[in-house]
Amino acid sequence: MTPGLFITLEGGDGSGKSTQAQLLTDWLEAAGHTVVRTREPGGTEVGVEIRQIVLHHRGEVSPRAEALLYAADRAQHVATLVRPALARGEIVIQDRYLDSSVAYQGAGRVLGGPEVRDLSLWAAEGLLPHLTLLLDLDETAARGRLDADNKVFDRLEAEKGEFHARVRAAFLDLAAAEPDRFLVLDAAAPIDEIAAVIRARVATLL
Amino acid sequence: MTPGLFITLEGGDGSGKSTQAQLLTDWLEAAGHTVVRTREPGGTEVGVEIRQIVLHHRGEVSPRAEALLYAADRAQHVATLVRPALARGEIVIQDRYLDSSVAYQGAGRVLGGPEVRDLSLWAAEGLLPHLTLLLDLDETAARGRLDADNKVFDRLEAEKGEFHARVRAAFLDLAAAEPDRFLVLDAAAPIDEIAAVIRARVATLL
Repeated sequence: MTPGLFITLEGGDGSGKSTQAQLLTDWLEAAGHTVVRTREPGGTEVGVEIRQIVLHHRGEVSPRAEALLYAADRAQHVATLVRPALARGEIVIQDRYLDSSVAYQGAGRVLGGPEVRDLSLWAAEGLLPHLTLLLDLDETAARGRLDADNKVFDRLEAEKGEFHARVRAAFLDLAAAEPDRFLVLDAAAPIDEIAAVIRARVATLL
Repeated sequence: MTPGLFITLEGGDGSGKSTQAQLLTDWLEAAGHTVVRTREPGGTEVGVEIRQIVLHHRGEVSPRAEALLYAADRAQHVATLVRPALARGEIVIQDRYLDSSVAYQGAGRVLGGPEVRDLSLWAAEGLLPHLTLLLDLDETAARGRLDADNKVFDRLEAEKGEFHARVRAAFLDLAAAEPDRFLVLDAAAPIDEIAAVIRARVATLL
């Protein structure tokens, strides 16, 4: 095992990952730990360039090309940022990791979850988080929260409801398959309440 | 099988791939065939952007990230250009394909040949060429040819001799493992002589 601690946050957009990541970071830093806050995609310089291709290319990006680009971002991120930080004994707190790839690309699109997971694990040379915080929110609540943030939800977005429901189910399946790694949190609960549950679990790993 | 014909050219830099690809294209077009000339990396718009990252990024690109970027380029190229052309019954003549990935990344760097090959085949959904023309040239001859083209060979390049020898050996191993797919050509032979051997073999596939 690596000497550091690797914690990932997963869940749909609007589920509060960034908020909880920041609260956890503040708490750990106040206790004297060195924390690296990062995210995928785009956590490295190469990753930013890859993200440009995936998110902003006009025209078709084939499903396998997209999966491979995300995997390349992951390989670079793990090799040049996450593993070195863990080797220094630091705590890495990361928005989205391989579970997002499996849930979004595997369950949501044409590729199978297991092959997307295999690809990610090859990219990361098998690195799995010590703890994955799944902020679980049903589609109706997620939409309401984004609306409250004054984000526009157009008809197309509304029609994506079924897609988001499949992603949510995929995340819950992943959590059920690895109960020791996952902590499933009700993202509709009060922010401080969720943060307290997270701190209690992380404390057992320090 | 696809209705078209997929021919790749492999071999080190300076082995004459482009020259032979052009001569073969001219001959096939003169015979009334529709030919798509392409190359990897960089045969698509997304591929050009990927190539920018791989070739021009300042700083470290991890070996797995690099392999995944090449595989993403391949996935996009095969899905959006090669397969559609083959489906239309056209002839695709391509500089470099998965054998280059195996020979360069597998044999030359830290990754194993079989895993690079598996990655490429996943990217390409299993598409293998009908014919692969390997222009085989020993390192000394290759260097002499590049010198004759007035390309500068600095000391670093000269020190890469051993690397090129390993790549050459890897190409020959691949050819030996799939003798039906590969046609190995002595790239030091006269251009017209090589072209005639290629034409004779391609004629059997038309």
